Amino acid sequence: MTYLKPVKKPIITLLTDFGLTDPYVAEMKGVIISICPEAVIVDISHQIRKFDIKMGAFILASATPYFPEGSIHVAVVDPGVGTERRAIIIVGKRSIYVGPDNGLMILSALKEGIEKVYSIEKAELTRGASATFHGRDIFAKAAAYIGKGSPPESFGPKIEDFIVPSFSKPIVEDGKVRGEIIHIDNFGNVITNIGLNNVKAISVEEGSELEVVVEGRPFRLKLCSTYGDVPRGRALTLIGSHGFLEIAVNQGSASEALSLKIGGKVEVYPHKKFR
Amino acid sequence: MTYLKPVKKPIITLLTDFGLTDPYVAEMKGVIISICPEAVIVDISHQIRKFDIKMGAFILASATPYFPEGSIHVAVVDPGVGTERRAIIIVGKRSIYVGPDNGLMILSALKEGIEKVYSIEKAELTRGASATFHGRDIFAKAAAYIGKGSPPESFGPKIEDFIVPSFSKPIVEDGKVRGEIIHIDNFGNVITNIGLNNVKAISVEEGSELEVVVEGRPFRLKLCSTYGDVPRGRALTLIGSHGFLEIAVNQGSASEALSLKIGGKVEVYPHKKFR
Amino acid sequence: MTYLKPVKKPIITLLTDFGLTDPYVAEMKGVIISICPEAVIVDISHQIRKFDIKMGAFILASATPYFPEGSIHVAVVDPGVGTERRAIIIVGKRSIYVGPDNGLMILSALKEGIEKVYSIEKAELTRGASATFHGRDIFAKAAAYIGKGSPPESFGPKIEDFIVPSFSKPIVEDGKVRGEIIHIDNFGNVITNIGLNNVKAISVEEGSELEVVVEGRPFRLKLCSTYGDVPRGRALTLIGSHGFLEIAVNQGSASEALSLKIGGKVEVYPHKKFR
Repeated sequence: MTYLKPVKKPIITLLTDFGLTDPYVAEMKGVIISICPEAVIVDISHQIRKFDIKMGAFILASATPYFPEGSIHVAVVDPGVGTERRAIIIVGKRSIYVGPDNGLMILSALKEGIEKVYSIEKAELTRGASATFHGRDIFAKAAAYIGKGSPPESFGPKIEDFIVPSFSKPIVEDGKVRGEIIHIDNFGNVITNIGLNNVKAISVEEGSELEVVVEGRPFRLKLCSTYGDVPRGRALTLIGSHGFLEIAVNQGSASEALSLKIGGKVEVYPHKKFR
Repeated sequence: MTYLKPVKKPIITLLTDFGLTDPYVAEMKGVIISICPEAVIVDISHQIRKFDIKMGAFILASATPYFPEGSIHVAVVDPGVGTERRAIIIVGKRSIYVGPDNGLMILSALKEGIEKVYSIEKAELTRGASATFHGRDIFAKAAAYIGKGSPPESFGPKIEDFIVPSFSKPIVEDGKVRGEIIHIDNFGNVITNIGLNNVKAISVEEGSELEVVVEGRPFRLKLCSTYGDVPRGRALTLIGSHGFLEIAVNQGSASEALSLKIGGKVEVYPHKKFR
Repeated sequence: MTYLKPVKKPIITLLTDFGLTDPYVAEMKGVIISICPEAVIVDISHQIRKFDIKMGAFILASATPYFPEGSIHVAVVDPGVGTERRAIIIVGKRSIYVGPDNGLMILSALKEGIEKVYSIEKAELTRGASATFHGRDIFAKAAAYIGKGSPPESFGPKIEDFIVPSFSKPIVEDGKVRGEIIHIDNFGNVITNIGLNNVKAISVEEGSELEVVVEGRPFRLKLCSTYGDVPRGRALTLIGSHGFLEIAVNQGSASEALSLKIGGKVEVYPHKKFR
């Protein structure tokens, strides 16, 4: 971690459910560059579904591995703003996270390894903060000060009881994998929580056929390496760029074509005749 | 104001009604960094409703106070582009504004205090400008030159007759406040033009109940400090992060739940029995 | 071209059909600043219609002329990702393009003049690349290395057989121009592929009336210099900011008002009585 020696141009990323119409994201950016003019601010997404911590956690965890070590990630999907929920700083092995203590940042932080978590209680930050917009008044400020070199421990006490959400994990048993749909992207690609290792555990290789049962409806699909491995309009599965099993349609929307929705239960079997 | 001594990395913000699909915003950015490569460009919003000067003025005035002194704000909601309407530079106490003389920037500039206003008439800028895209051909250019150190007075004559729109103001009388809905944000929060001082003027304190009458329909709502002060799905009022009275639903959309629309007339009373 | 002497702050632009909800654009940016922290990244558009190479080509070609010489443009509308289609670098007279060999970048590159085209085959880039996200794993990386000073010829062999799409061109004959609608912008302005020179070729001057026939339906419209030259709500034509003949409605949507769609065949005549 490079946070103790302040970098010349700290990278601060933003992920929120604010959308891009309102002034909220710009207000956060104004606060950051007022404190830390040398910051390089990068948007991850501001289109998280309102209050959808799970979606925010998935998008954040997908993007952060591609940012340089020492990046500071500010995440705000915050239905509990202004209530008793704490504001926290997570010091990970590669990056620092600033946001609400509601599980939003844990999925990403666990991927790289969590070193320490601090509760933000410093009076300079919490005094005068609006009760409705901690993204601007607390998180953006804390991130900018960290970018300027303030050590995370200067913001408040170390805590151990931060919230760890119980995101569902895929289960491999009896020669099948059970998981669920965690995201549908802008192309209509249907992304599950089933990883490459789970698929390998049931002895399925690229090029073979799988039987994928979603909410009881069976689909026989080839495990491809890319969308163009099947004709246009045809459904397939592949291990997507985020490392998860994905159901897709070449140049089409699998979500629409197959009526698949987030949260849908998925079972994956090696394809056998007469199953 | 720092504009006379050019800053090393001038901040130039952009607010338009162009949307993010077309190349228009990128063309403005290309023009700015061609002239002033050291500029830090920050988007405020490009999703202002087409030609809606009032909405643009509100979003701009909400965001600008959070930007550093010396920032240059370019705003383009410009139904009169290419006609006789002037292009102006407003020198405020903290920032500089560049855009059309149609009232768009006045609300924000008045908040910080207006020092001088100039009409952009310099031939280098106006000659060869397209008649349909002054955002790119005049405003972005002028902002970039100001960022490089050109003084605002070098662009044209000082003027006094710039357009000051008559945005409606709340009225306090007979123990009630009358105002209107000026914005509905992406969460469905309903923002009025009624400020904290207006609410105090009718002796309402945080925690007390108000009667809010919108277009004749009465709502009895608590004045809270944050959304989570009421159960999920319940309506409330609070003074929002922009300093105005807001009607909201905890983790929901007040606009949808209560069928509230921009422009709706609002009356606020302290709650009394049998009113 | 400045690419051989690396510039201090290389400009890298991005155009994709990824939308702004998913982490894909942020992943590309993370990759770029990990390799080339001094890069200035500018979004052109991420709202290209999925797989619509023609729309991507038009938006890219509209925006690039406004960026400084030496800019690096990464474009990803890539239905053939992971298949045999090549990844290419186009060295133009003013800029460098990185993206798929599917015609997307040719319209823009031809406008400035193409110097050389290289196929990206360097093992460091292609090895380990996901088969589904070359935008992140190949194009963003190649652009960042070019920004750091790697010469384009170091990425692979020079090629001559890159794909040149046959975008339709307007035809002037018998005193009329025939063309088509190539884009409808966010305002509903209807943009054709008919240029100023085509209009001049049929002796039409600004201020005169034209007869514009779209898919057999005739409209009599004035050739104006800006939208405000006709009353609000009235239709007009003008040469837009991109240099093409545009059908518009002052402060309204020509696309909606006149039911005009992309791809519609357009014929333009000088207006004559009893035609």
